Amino acid sequence: MIIGKVVGYVVSTRKCDNLVGNKFMIVQPIENMNAGEKIVAVDKVGAGVGELVLVATGSAARIGCGMTNAPIDAAIVGIVDEGQKID
Amino acid sequence: MIIGKVVGYVVSTRKCDNLVGNKFMIVQPIENMNAGEKIVAVDKVGAGVGELVLVATGSAARIGCGMTNAPIDAAIVGIVDEGQKID
Amino acid sequence: MIIGKVVGYVVSTRKCDNLVGNKFMIVQPIENMNAGEKIVAVDKVGAGVGELVLVATGSAARIGCGMTNAPIDAAIVGIVDEGQKID
Amino acid sequence: MIIGKVVGYVVSTRKCDNLVGNKFMIVQPIENMNAGEKIVAVDKVGAGVGELVLVATGSAARIGCGMTNAPIDAAIVGIVDEGQKID
Amino acid sequence: MIIGKVVGYVVSTRKCDNLVGNKFMIVQPIENMNAGEKIVAVDKVGAGVGELVLVATGSAARIGCGMTNAPIDAAIVGIVDEGQKID
Repeated sequence: MIIGKVVGYVVSTRKCDNLVGNKFMIVQPIENMNAGEKIVAVDKVGAGVGELVLVATGSAARIGCGMTNAPIDAAIVGIVDEGQKID
Repeated sequence: MIIGKVVGYVVSTRKCDNLVGNKFMIVQPIENMNAGEKIVAVDKVGAGVGELVLVATGSAARIGCGMTNAPIDAAIVGIVDEGQKID
Repeated sequence: MIIGKVVGYVVSTRKCDNLVGNKFMIVQPIENMNAGEKIVAVDKVGAGVGELVLVATGSAARIGCGMTNAPIDAAIVGIVDEGQKID
Repeated sequence: MIIGKVVGYVVSTRKCDNLVGNKFMIVQPIENMNAGEKIVAVDKVGAGVGELVLVATGSAARIGCGMTNAPIDAAIVGIVDEGQKID
Repeated sequence: MIIGKVVGYVVSTRKCDNLVGNKFMIVQPIENMNAGEKIVAVDKVGAGVGELVLVATGSAARIGCGMTNAPIDAAIVGIVDEGQKID
């Protein structure tokens, strides 16, 4: 997983049927975190813009989040507790 | 997923049988989006050249788009609504 | 998928049993194509050195090419039509 | 797999149900090891901060660690023996 | 797959049970080969230090090598024949 900050979201009206009902958040990985640039992740935990989150990628995002048949390759799976220093 | 712009397409007459009937679009990820350079993605939502799209990669492209047995590792799964500012 | 040029091949006599019978081509992704440097891909479409090809990576290469149980993570799945300008 | 050093951990109270009970360690890949920057990996072997560890990524982290249905894409699967010189 | 040179190995006494019995080799991808830096790969073909090898990554390493339930994301699956010039 990587740690990133939710910096926005993206709206897509025309999309695959099995994506309907999901929120697509834009996540900026924190500095020195593997992943480089921004990714779009489905939100599974009610994350808001500005929050630090844990993002899982690959098949883990689909299968680990009960969306086995959806074309999802990244999901927000946790919110990092406030006040935490990330080494 | 990543956000990119459809910049062209590629035609392949000699290809695996289970790829027949698909359109192969060339997608340029937008700036600061993880993925770096261009990728070729199968279009599942009727995207046109010049449109901003959501691209899913890995097994999500195959399984999440009903092409479980096709050698596809990237698919356009949504079209970003017009006029949207991507943070 | 990515687009690349077949630049050579590699011979491996001592290899896993379920790789026997495959051709291992060396593919150089074209400029500005995501993937960076050369990869070794199994040829499923009769590609020759010098041809532009479509390469699928990850589980798509195995499952989408009928080699579910082989340790293959990249496959040439199409040959780009001649004379095509890649944007 | 890659070799990295455990440099910290991250606490997430609000997270997917099937992540409950896991420790999320922050791992810094050693120099010249493929992976680049830090990743967050679930600990399966009781690794402590400062230890050199083996990290498996992708579906291997989920399926190979008995967490098939959890959104986990990286796991610490071994501790490198002390005093070992990594070439 | 990628081509690399075996440059060493790593010993891990405390590791996941389903990794027991495997050799963990450190492989340096050859120049201009996609993958960048060193990776740790399980050896399935009896490769020795100094040999050029083919490495498969991702689920191919697990499933294609008969280690479906082990947390392995890279495996040496072939030894490149001696005297071969890699283009």
